[in-house]
Amino acid sequence: MKLYDLDVSGNCYKVRLFAALANIDLELIPVDLASGAHKRPPLSDLNPLQQVPVLEDGPVVLRDSQAILVYLAGQYGGLAWWPAHPEGQAHVVQWLSFAANEVQHSVNAARLVRKFGYPLDHAGALDKSKLTLTLLDQHLAHNDWLAMGRPTIADCAVYPYVVLAPEGDVDLQPYVHVGRWIERLQKLPGYLAKP
Amino acid sequence: MKLYDLDVSGNCYKVRLFAALANIDLELIPVDLASGAHKRPPLSDLNPLQQVPVLEDGPVVLRDSQAILVYLAGQYGGLAWWPAHPEGQAHVVQWLSFAANEVQHSVNAARLVRKFGYPLDHAGALDKSKLTLTLLDQHLAHNDWLAMGRPTIADCAVYPYVVLAPEGDVDLQPYVHVGRWIERLQKLPGYLAKP
Repeated sequence: MKLYDLDVSGNCYKVRLFAALANIDLELIPVDLASGAHKRPPLSDLNPLQQVPVLEDGPVVLRDSQAILVYLAGQYGGLAWWPAHPEGQAHVVQWLSFAANEVQHSVNAARLVRKFGYPLDHAGALDKSKLTLTLLDQHLAHNDWLAMGRPTIADCAVYPYVVLAPEGDVDLQPYVHVGRWIERLQKLPGYLAKP
Repeated sequence: MKLYDLDVSGNCYKVRLFAALANIDLELIPVDLASGAHKRPPLSDLNPLQQVPVLEDGPVVLRDSQAILVYLAGQYGGLAWWPAHPEGQAHVVQWLSFAANEVQHSVNAARLVRKFGYPLDHAGALDKSKLTLTLLDQHLAHNDWLAMGRPTIADCAVYPYVVLAPEGDVDLQPYVHVGRWIERLQKLPGYLAKP
């Protein structure tokens, strides 16, 4: 099973982290984004959105880190990570959307400016980061994990860009419950450290 | 089952549309966002993100239109709309993420500026809209529906802000295959017209 991968990408780290925790073997295929490899075949054929990660499992080809987490957990990870009942799935999907939207457009946007020089609004990203991290902290004040009372793919989707936030000059210190959740996650068997 | 709802919200329309297509009864509770009702209890307790829609089904409370679609389809809609196997679920989730991210930050951003006066970058939103609609058009050139070869919650998640795009001065005419998909969706039994 191949993962088209970029080391510094938080979206790729979501997949690598979950695969490590769930003991799933992935063959990593590094993609040279700097030379535009994502805009040429085979990557642009596998993913017209021209993004990594892309998962290739025999005939199954998937883009989008959230979708890849659902597939890997459902196919190989067991029910602990992605429940079978609709209520549990919906509770997990709430946080997959939070990862794809709120987290992506706050702490990740701040990191894109500071680490990679993207011409985005860093001050605006910092404001959004406060909102996003405050919401996360409030939830984690009453919950050890994001959904289901146990580690799920929800945690694997939200964690990467949060733990990478300091690379965007976002200070995680005020968010005590986020800090404890990060510590809990780092103690899980098989944990894979951030890039 | 209550849906806390705003008539003009495309995210609420995703849920109303799917409920109509799948013949699921919802009690609509209008939320007066203009007076800030989403920032006060009961809404702010039900959804700390202070957004609509929120679904309340007895003890089950869910935010996020994508999560609500997964719940309603899994619980009440049958396997046609949300498959049970991981590969199918992942193919649907790819498009739920596309709705929550690419669609939200392109055609919806353009509509927020033109219809509601949000201080966002309209020209930038138009550029992103071209990319998003071109990707959608290319996919629909070879597929009648977004996933699984049949209507699923993926279509219900992506359709609303696309069909509302002209309200943001986005021209849908160049996207022939998107136009045909819109027509197909509008012919489904139970179809609910846009707000």
